[in-house]
Amino acid sequence: MEIERLSLEEFCKRVAERKPTPGGGAVGSVVGALACALAEMVANFTRKKKGYEDIEPEMERIMEAMEGAREKLFSLAKKDIEAFERVMKSYKESKEELQDALKEAASVPMDVIRIMRDLGHELEKLAEFGNKNLASDVLNAMDLCRAVFLVEKVNALVNLKSVEDEEFKNEMLKELDEQEKQVEGSYKRVREFLEGIVWSSR
Amino acid sequence: MEIERLSLEEFCKRVAERKPTPGGGAVGSVVGALACALAEMVANFTRKKKGYEDIEPEMERIMEAMEGAREKLFSLAKKDIEAFERVMKSYKESKEELQDALKEAASVPMDVIRIMRDLGHELEKLAEFGNKNLASDVLNAMDLCRAVFLVEKVNALVNLKSVEDEEFKNEMLKELDEQEKQVEGSYKRVREFLEGIVWSSR
Repeated sequence: MEIERLSLEEFCKRVAERKPTPGGGAVGSVVGALACALAEMVANFTRKKKGYEDIEPEMERIMEAMEGAREKLFSLAKKDIEAFERVMKSYKESKEELQDALKEAASVPMDVIRIMRDLGHELEKLAEFGNKNLASDVLNAMDLCRAVFLVEKVNALVNLKSVEDEEFKNEMLKELDEQEKQVEGSYKRVREFLEGIVWSSR
Repeated sequence: MEIERLSLEEFCKRVAERKPTPGGGAVGSVVGALACALAEMVANFTRKKKGYEDIEPEMERIMEAMEGAREKLFSLAKKDIEAFERVMKSYKESKEELQDALKEAASVPMDVIRIMRDLGHELEKLAEFGNKNLASDVLNAMDLCRAVFLVEKVNALVNLKSVEDEEFKNEMLKELDEQEKQVEGSYKRVREFLEGIVWSSR
């Protein structure tokens, strides 16, 4: 079953069940897809708007990128479920198999995180050049993007904790730090661009 | 059409379209429902677990509350769409109608925010008393809960900006500040309870 074919209600039900999957990692991927859809709407409303002709090709590039990202995120949600099930199964198997399974279970959230870093960069462009009537949607997408980063970071760390390959572990921890700086940088810049527009009345 | 019956893919498509709705407010409600589903899973895994018998009734109460919250959040997602469409239509109508529409469009996100405040309180209980194997899911739900608060705050402010009834406006701004303190308090406490469990290895 492809995750994206499930109704919102059915997906929530499966999350809520007394079964370990889908858990937080898969939910994070799905929320990431929703954030990409919001970014796509902003690009969609910016192209073909009077005064925005120059950036039409850039907006179309962003739309295409967001569609691709959504597809990847849904497939990563599925991968997250499979990776977690493999970890649970591996506890009964060899130590090597468990170590491999844990590495994979840490790698899936990192893939989601890389997409969130890219989404943050696109949101910076939308904040600077996009249709200002949709400023709140850009801010919303950025808040969700950052939350998904945090969700996936926790899921990567939970699995890394039991990984014994120190080189693999240290590289992942280093990348987590780097990606966090990127996402936090995008967060800061998106807010700087748009905050005044949204709540200058306060 | 009930939002919750849409597939994840279809809902994303509708968000991404060149149509103003569903926008960030509706997406926020849906993410709130996902966070409630995660909280429900944790309660579901805590009850009937050896050593957790004393808190079984409390866990069952949380499960029921989370199911109710999900239903409300899906209906608020629909209300958010309707409220925004009413605002757009009202620009062509009387000033009074526009003012009423704006007040309603600010009230819907506030309803979502109240549910997030309650979710934060439940997550504090799950962080303290819940099955520790699901610590990462509690942290994930809390990150999403806080993001949804921020999303809905922006949507409330965007509409409040043009509300002329100063009393209504000030009351809403005051409540936003209060709810923010609540959600941030839950965020802090949930992290204090669980952070060590998740990344003591760093």
